[in-house]
Amino acid sequence: MRQVLFLEDFHEGQSFALGPHTVTAAAIVAFAREFDPQPFHLDEDAAEASLLGGLAASGWHSTAMLMRLMCDACLSRSAILGSSGMDEVKWLAPVLAGDVLAGTFTITGARASASRPGIGIVNFTSALADTAGTPKIEMTGIFFMRSRPS
Amino acid sequence: MRQVLFLEDFHEGQSFALGPHTVTAAAIVAFAREFDPQPFHLDEDAAEASLLGGLAASGWHSTAMLMRLMCDACLSRSAILGSSGMDEVKWLAPVLAGDVLAGTFTITGARASASRPGIGIVNFTSALADTAGTPKIEMTGIFFMRSRPS
Repeated sequence: MRQVLFLEDFHEGQSFALGPHTVTAAAIVAFAREFDPQPFHLDEDAAEASLLGGLAASGWHSTAMLMRLMCDACLSRSAILGSSGMDEVKWLAPVLAGDVLAGTFTITGARASASRPGIGIVNFTSALADTAGTPKIEMTGIFFMRSRPS
Repeated sequence: MRQVLFLEDFHEGQSFALGPHTVTAAAIVAFAREFDPQPFHLDEDAAEASLLGGLAASGWHSTAMLMRLMCDACLSRSAILGSSGMDEVKWLAPVLAGDVLAGTFTITGARASASRPGIGIVNFTSALADTAGTPKIEMTGIFFMRSRPS
């Protein structure tokens, strides 16, 4: 049976490796068709003529990929309860077809809730870059996490 | 031929209606399987036992649905060039299977770039609520938009 991570297992400065994850043109287009049907997310030629310089993932696809990597890194085996939001999402450079993304999920704080017994708040920053080291996406936010049952 | 909206067509205080959009259990599970495989996004019983109170969309699914509604409202017929990020994403209440979401996409500023001729920055806030008026998601961010060709 897998070990579940509780609030007490997270602490400031802790870091989890993310990826690597290869971004495919097919995945970019599939996401964009459903959620962000703009030419530079759908069509190679339109994308190359755009500011983005090539077929680029929707920013919302990038955040979703980042979330998946955070799940795989540790959240899927944690007692996470959800989130009330992100403080900031930065799309630093276009995520292009063929990019191989990797990065870190860093815990910047973890504390028990003052108002809700048994629940805590975990602050984090996550970032992904390509293999050349170009930063692509960064986000800062919180999760709610259950405390270890006593 | 459809009319394209340029930077000059956006101004502070302008508002576009979003939705309605019905959130299905199948869409919630499909998104979660790919991007956010947590029990409360995947399994009805686990979700009902969770803090979220029922099968709930990934927050990243909610933002993606919101983006799609913004595309349908006006961005798909605009000269949008991309975005460098969001200042804030708030998941105010769980987006549940069966929710019918609607809201507004409000322009809070639009100005020409000081450094990049022909390009401008559009600030916005978008929000969705369910039919009972419960606020579900709110986000604040920017887009880059091309100026009307002279």
